[in-house]
Amino acid sequence: MQINGKEYRSLWYEDDALKMIDQNLLPYEFEIKSFTDHLEVAEAIRIMTVRGAPAIGAAGAYGMALTILNAPDEKFRNHIRKAHGTLIAARPTAIDLSIGVNYVYESALKFIPDLSYTRHVALLAAHEFANNIVRECQEIGVLGSQVVPPGARILTHCNAGALATIDHGTALAVIRQAHREGKNIFVYVDETRPRLQGAKLTAFELEQEGIPHAIITDAASGFYFWKGEIDMVITGADRICLNGDIANKIGTYEKAVMAQVHDIPFYIAAPVSTFDFACVSGKDIPIEIRSEDEIKRIGENIICNPGSAALNPAFDITPAKYIGGIITPKGIFEPSEAAQKVQL
Amino acid sequence: MQINGKEYRSLWYEDDALKMIDQNLLPYEFEIKSFTDHLEVAEAIRIMTVRGAPAIGAAGAYGMALTILNAPDEKFRNHIRKAHGTLIAARPTAIDLSIGVNYVYESALKFIPDLSYTRHVALLAAHEFANNIVRECQEIGVLGSQVVPPGARILTHCNAGALATIDHGTALAVIRQAHREGKNIFVYVDETRPRLQGAKLTAFELEQEGIPHAIITDAASGFYFWKGEIDMVITGADRICLNGDIANKIGTYEKAVMAQVHDIPFYIAAPVSTFDFACVSGKDIPIEIRSEDEIKRIGENIICNPGSAALNPAFDITPAKYIGGIITPKGIFEPSEAAQKVQL
Repeated sequence: MQINGKEYRSLWYEDDALKMIDQNLLPYEFEIKSFTDHLEVAEAIRIMTVRGAPAIGAAGAYGMALTILNAPDEKFRNHIRKAHGTLIAARPTAIDLSIGVNYVYESALKFIPDLSYTRHVALLAAHEFANNIVRECQEIGVLGSQVVPPGARILTHCNAGALATIDHGTALAVIRQAHREGKNIFVYVDETRPRLQGAKLTAFELEQEGIPHAIITDAASGFYFWKGEIDMVITGADRICLNGDIANKIGTYEKAVMAQVHDIPFYIAAPVSTFDFACVSGKDIPIEIRSEDEIKRIGENIICNPGSAALNPAFDITPAKYIGGIITPKGIFEPSEAAQKVQL
Repeated sequence: MQINGKEYRSLWYEDDALKMIDQNLLPYEFEIKSFTDHLEVAEAIRIMTVRGAPAIGAAGAYGMALTILNAPDEKFRNHIRKAHGTLIAARPTAIDLSIGVNYVYESALKFIPDLSYTRHVALLAAHEFANNIVRECQEIGVLGSQVVPPGARILTHCNAGALATIDHGTALAVIRQAHREGKNIFVYVDETRPRLQGAKLTAFELEQEGIPHAIITDAASGFYFWKGEIDMVITGADRICLNGDIANKIGTYEKAVMAQVHDIPFYIAAPVSTFDFACVSGKDIPIEIRSEDEIKRIGENIICNPGSAALNPAFDITPAKYIGGIITPKGIFEPSEAAQKVQL
């Protein structure tokens, strides 16, 4: 992605460390943090220094590789088994995290007892996992742009951008590509309470690429649906089930329902790592409940009635019947057949 | 309403002045402001020191009365005609404002050239208008509570409370009454971006009355609809048309659609002053577009990508077909017949 005219990924491996753009500081400060230990990586995932399902998958992969690289020879297996658990537990909803961690874990462990080769393979596997996501996102953009009509006014929710996916994005890969093809699009950006990933990160990415857009509050899209000023909706996903149900950032479900009621296509864009082939339907997806402070405070300031509680589910489930198509690197599929088709 | 154990109205006339609880300072500070001039009143309506359709109707009525009381005998008519225009223009969407202003204007002007009697009637008319809203809200509560099942989990949006309506509330009158009747209800409070009237004012009113509740972000209700944990939705309205379409706080339309998709009743609660008998359908209602700063900033802090624009419609239209019933002081009516029935 372009940031201040220079190409960046949201995370990469350099000088024996995992580097990440600190997404908690954007868009006000651009700072690159450095991680050499899986505990630091798990904490960065938990506090959302890195966020977005594919990006935390890659962060988990590199976190696992860092552990394998740095674990002492003695009790090597114990050490990395514990790290494996810690990394996967950092956030529960996005399946990409466990897929990334497992990919490195399983690739490398085959070579025990050759610890030198195990370590070598661990880093290679993490690189491969990350590069694969980048390639898939690029393919998502090219394929997805085909369903964007010229002049489309597109609604998106949360940040499914390059920040969320190492590079290009999922939903934003489609938007970027449509813009590059001169399709003269306009993007409504849901601010995405409570953490405002839309207002902060998606708006930042769109501005950096010169894509026309405006921020709206999360429930304001109804007004633009009613006026006939939204032509399509695209979001990312944190997990896709066998039956085509998906989990994504809280608020996504309402967008999908509004799109269907207004007869407007609702698309999910996701790499293969977002599919959970062990998950039958949305009811099986664990929903992360985060701290009420994310709703009650902005920075140091309390922004609500102090004596009231808040409920903060971080994701919701969108049933397959509301999804017009899932844009994957392998094609654009009906939700009910997507999990099968991406495996072919 | 109870505030710190004492009974208050959101506005009242005392010592030759209109008094208002400053709703911009709640819930952090409880301060009563004093107004002796229609320009001050219009500004208070514009900056939302007072807000809520019925309350700004009453504020407009008292603003008109203050003008009539204080206008010099010379060019009396000119003076109050100008004030009439200024007050009505303070906010465009709620019809109650012009109804309140006109009620005092027309009641009093009949008695010109007897300026002493004109002034006397102006204040009486403002009192009558305000007391009528209070009585209607009480009736809304008693009638509306009949449709609240025991144990109901109720979603509400924005603040349709005593603060918005002088006393009792519209949607909150129903909730208050159901609570007093021991119905063991629970209220999901949409925070209501951008101005957070739900998180600040509704949550404050509910806490003051000891009604169990929790704040959620505006698009999070989808998660609770999906889980089957919302039994009914009640909001207020800023304008009700002849065909039963309504305007209410931005975000209301999405709640109504979600309720219908989940086969859950969606109710509007409103006094008669919210009906616009000259307005055929929702397309005829002017929608106020407020400053993008309400979205982009909280206090002094910018909370989004600084280079991005924001769009801030303050209201949306909910078509009649999504409304299960309109709770009025005269009864609970089908949207399409409500305007006719409240006039009987």
